[in-house]
This record gives sequence, structure tokens and C-alpha cells, in this order.
Amino acid sequence: MKVINDLLDYNSMKIVQVDEYFNFSLDSVLLPNFVTLRTKVKKILDLGTGNAPIPLILSTLCNAHIYGIEIQKEVFELAKESVEMNNLQDRVTLINDDMKNLDKYFEQGSFDVIVSNPPYFEVEEESKFNDNEIKTIARHEKKIKLKDIIEIARKYLDNGGVFAMVHRTERLIEIIQLMKENNIEPKRIRFIYPKEGTESNMVLIEGRKNVNPGLKVVEPLIAHTNQDEYSKEVKEMFKARDKKWS
Amino acid sequence: MKVINDLLDYNSMKIVQVDEYFNFSLDSVLLPNFVTLRTKVKKILDLGTGNAPIPLILSTLCNAHIYGIEIQKEVFELAKESVEMNNLQDRVTLINDDMKNLDKYFEQGSFDVIVSNPPYFEVEEESKFNDNEIKTIARHEKKIKLKDIIEIARKYLDNGGVFAMVHRTERLIEIIQLMKENNIEPKRIRFIYPKEGTESNMVLIEGRKNVNPGLKVVEPLIAHTNQDEYSKEVKEMFKARDKKWS
Repeated sequence: MKVINDLLDYNSMKIVQVDEYFNFSLDSVLLPNFVTLRTKVKKILDLGTGNAPIPLILSTLCNAHIYGIEIQKEVFELAKESVEMNNLQDRVTLINDDMKNLDKYFEQGSFDVIVSNPPYFEVEEESKFNDNEIKTIARHEKKIKLKDIIEIARKYLDNGGVFAMVHRTERLIEIIQLMKENNIEPKRIRFIYPKEGTESNMVLIEGRKNVNPGLKVVEPLIAHTNQDEYSKEVKEMFKARDKKWS
Repeated sequence: MKVINDLLDYNSMKIVQVDEYFNFSLDSVLLPNFVTLRTKVKKILDLGTGNAPIPLILSTLCNAHIYGIEIQKEVFELAKESVEMNNLQDRVTLINDDMKNLDKYFEQGSFDVIVSNPPYFEVEEESKFNDNEIKTIARHEKKIKLKDIIEIARKYLDNGGVFAMVHRTERLIEIIQLMKENNIEPKRIRFIYPKEGTESNMVLIEGRKNVNPGLKVVEPLIAHTNQDEYSKEVKEMFKARDKKWS
């Protein structure tokens, strides 16, 4: 069933979802709040934008133009509805295509910032998928692999440009290797822990194209309290900043 | 001036130090408390053992035989004194040599576990060194580089054996790449933060030789309270376990 949910509390931003196959996750809120957005940032690209939670949130955090590409027609339609409902047509442009076809739309090196909340799971046995096809494509590397996404980021990122991703911590080593192979130097990492005293399940990582090495690992992010509520920091993220772009 | 300090409070383990050039650091306490020590572990090697804080602490945590190699004669002499003072001659064997000469003493693949608290800083300008020569060698990569240490670890580690290191977080990407190149798969990482809300300055990392990928990032370790005391967890480490090997 199609539903309209609050995406951000304080500026009444809405998002269109379909319970059976597409709901935005906490990860989509953490990523735009993590990525470094300099004041001069002009063009941002979101690879695999889903129902566009990341472009919607980014529109409240900077005044760049944000592009999102989504391969699945049904999900793209939800994203389009959300952008229109929030009157963001002149800030957010959506493309319904495979990200491997980005050269139809953009020159190489076109973006200051590229972000992605990609499918997390490697495809091993076809028979394992219990989800419907739409969910499966969003969560498993059926249409696109980590390696492809990082290669695409390298191609469309300007020199010094920022690539930021949210992913599962268990795949961090692979992510770092792929970034290095593509001259995207890992510069900033933040680990997400479900609760205090647990192992990290998710990681936020940011690299820059063709810059010198030097890593910062910033303070841990604890997602939930021991009472299973969102932590104070996460709750703050759901309140969009009052300060709008001008 | 040569002084005898407490290394661990509760079992009155002592360590010999020289104020001007060699004092054990917190890092040397964190590493033996981090590394995975299975009950069947037989032989451990500490690369660049200094005044032997790591072998001394390891002797309280497992019943393996521990070998330490130290290139600097003056520092090796302190280590020897400490081992004798704690009556650990039959548990801890020290070697005064360059770790590049380990083949004089051991076969390849001899160790279950190899640990190292290596020099942290790359050698750039000779003129930068304000410390005396002994301190400089312990802290800067004058005699040995990160790359050499990880290659030596690979050589003397048995298949499936554990390599664990403490190092500066800013060099983590390089460490991961070198471990991968040497078939030491990074399996477990713990970040150390000086205080709550700060960036990580140090990292504990453990890999295993010739095993499958899959990383765990365990809970963060906060070293100090906001009152500049050691945190509760660190204080606990200074209390050697009552349970002795048998």
C-alpha cells in the first residue's frame, strides 16, 4: 500500500513509500548528515537513489543541485512523487536508468560530490531470495556490484571531489581496496553501532579523488539507546535544519 | 635515571624503565589485552619488544612461551632485567638483534601469534628528531618500516595464525593494504578514542594468515574520562587477572 510518511519532522518534509517494497531506512538519513558539503558545492549525484530520501535530505543541508539515478521504474515513480510533493523539482532531478548508462546524461568529472546507499549483499545463490523482485534488487547486488559503483564514482567525480557511502562494516576492507584502486583516497570514516557495547554493523566512509592519504576516524555513532529508542544524535538528524539555503 | 615501576597492580608485576629514554606506554597494555589468545596457543613473538611490557603482560594472560626481539642493546638490557625480576625466564625469551635476522633463530611459520607495537612515525627529515637516538629508533621508522614488519609477520606466522598490532589510526589504510598484500586478512579492529566525542588516535588491528575475509569492528575503547583519568576499562587492564596459567 502506498503511504505518505514524514521524512523530516521539523520542516514537514514528506516521502512516498510502499510498505511491501520500499521504505527508507536509517542509513539513508545518516549518509547525507555525514558527507562533507562545502558551501561552494554545485552538483551532487546519488547512485541508486531509491525513493529519493537522500536527495530530499540533502536539499535541506546545502544549495547544490542534486541528481538521483534509479534503475527500477516503480521505485523511480515514488521518488518523483516525493520530489513534487515537496516542491523540489528545481533542486532535484531524477533519472530512471541503469547507472551504467550515466554517460548518456553527464560528462566525466561533472560532480563535486557523489553519494550512494547501495545494495549491501553479494549475490550467491539465486534461490536464497525470499523478498519480491523490487526489494531484492534494492538489497542485493543483482544489477550492480560494489566494484561498479566505485568505478562509476571515480569516473563522474571531479578532481578533489568527495565520494561518500554507507555500507555494512563487514565489507569495509573490500570498500577500502576498491577506493584505493580507483584513486579515491579514504579520508573520513564513522562507525555506527546499534547500541552501546555492540559491534559495529554499519559504516560511513568518505574519500576524495586524487588527493594525498591521511585517514580520520571520527567519533562513534550509537544508533539506539538501551531502551530501544533512537539515540539523541539520530533524533536530531530527523529535525531538518532551520537554516535553509538562500 | 633507571627506575622500577609497577606494570600491573594486582600481581605486583614490575618493569624496569629509564626516564630519559624508555617508558612503556598505554598502547603496550592495550595490545596484549586485545589480541585473540586461544587456549592452545604455544608460541608468541613480539616484534620490537622494547623493555618487554607486552611479553610481561601476555605471560599473565596465557601459558604460551613468549619471544621478544629488540634491536637496541640498552633497551634489551632493561627488558632482561624486568624478565628476571618477575622470575619469568622460563616463560619469556628475549633476543637482542635486528628482526630482519629472525631466520637465525626460527623456522618460517613457527608462531601461532605475532604481535607488534612498532615505531609509529615515518622518517621524513632527519633534522626533525629532537629526541635522543634511543627514543628516535623506538618511535620513528629508522631501522624498520611498517612494510618490513608485516612481511616478517607473514613469514614467521603459521597458517591461520594471528597477527595483531597497535598503530596510529591515520595509517590504517596503509596497514590494511599491506596486510592484504601479505595474505594476512584483517579480521578484527578496535578503535581507541582519547575521550568521548574525539576522533580516534590509535587503532588495534588483528589479522589471520590465509583465511577468508570478514571484518568485525568491535566496540570503541575510550581511554580517558572527561576528568583526565583512565577509563574504567583501562583501569581494569592494569589489574592482572587472578587466574594464572596452570
